[in-house]
Amino acid sequence: MARERRSVRRFKRDPIPDEDLKYILDVAHYAPSGANRQPWRFIIVKDPDIKRRIRVICEEIEKEFYKHVPQWFMEFARERGITWRKPHLEEAPVLIHVFGYRRSPHWKESVWLMIGYLLLASASKGYATLTYTPSDTRWANDFFNVPENWGLETIINIGYPAHQPSFPGRYELSEICFENTWGNRCFKE
Amino acid sequence: MARERRSVRRFKRDPIPDEDLKYILDVAHYAPSGANRQPWRFIIVKDPDIKRRIRVICEEIEKEFYKHVPQWFMEFARERGITWRKPHLEEAPVLIHVFGYRRSPHWKESVWLMIGYLLLASASKGYATLTYTPSDTRWANDFFNVPENWGLETIINIGYPAHQPSFPGRYELSEICFENTWGNRCFKE
Repeated sequence: MARERRSVRRFKRDPIPDEDLKYILDVAHYAPSGANRQPWRFIIVKDPDIKRRIRVICEEIEKEFYKHVPQWFMEFARERGITWRKPHLEEAPVLIHVFGYRRSPHWKESVWLMIGYLLLASASKGYATLTYTPSDTRWANDFFNVPENWGLETIINIGYPAHQPSFPGRYELSEICFENTWGNRCFKE
Repeated sequence: MARERRSVRRFKRDPIPDEDLKYILDVAHYAPSGANRQPWRFIIVKDPDIKRRIRVICEEIEKEFYKHVPQWFMEFARERGITWRKPHLEEAPVLIHVFGYRRSPHWKESVWLMIGYLLLASASKGYATLTYTPSDTRWANDFFNVPENWGLETIINIGYPAHQPSFPGRYELSEICFENTWGNRCFKE
């Protein structure tokens, strides 16, 4: 399942049932967290007008961001067809805005571990996901009326894929798993 | 599965088969990462002598750390029986030391999302896990001969539980999931 999950950048507009969405968030919220603080909240957006406004805000941010990115990033982005355009924010039937509580111990670690749960749960229901973090996230506090010390960590786009995504590959396990000391490969084939 | 996973603090010493360990790391390494940099490496330790040395180092660090922790943490720790003692580092048959590459984009987010995969994969094979991050992790670079810009993020303890862990509970979904704006609860029961 983990193997088959892919990030897609274009979605069909078909809605996803609330029941599935609830299942996905249910799995995610069982993730462990530092001192069990559960330093996450979710703002779900399905409304086309609100999604359009979010897309406009994020595209403005990315246009500005792309003026200053390093060369390697530009090359990576070009290869994968990534630009300042974020049509997925309108196309994906559901956007899950994930907020983290910046006063909890290990809040960032906890939030992202939980996102791992969320992506696998989405894959288990057959949905494609894209984890998109705008280059600047401060707009979200005003936009969603978010209290102090909470901040947008990322936007999970969920839906049905509109294209067959390519797989960028992974290292072999034997290249990244060592035993007892760095460089001592285990799982040699 | 997510629901049944628990953090345990005491493990049986029974070994876990390499096959299962490989499965768990295989799932984990399919996690997506910023620009597909896969900014993680794993150092696996099963050797009892090395585990003992790691325990000694970590307990020294925690003894020092516990002198300066805030009151709420002490209370939380006391309730859950957490002290500077880290017997799990010797008892768990496998310690997976997770290293992150601090020069990759979104490296911390990527590493912890991957850890979410790793914990669920462990649970799917029936293992208990404990994600233990020493209060200071700098010792690990010398100890494991780790190159510059890589740092220890956490130690995943894996094995069979030696006790029935209590469940600290979670918020209701309706308390943490909002629609369109903060506080507008969805999934009301």
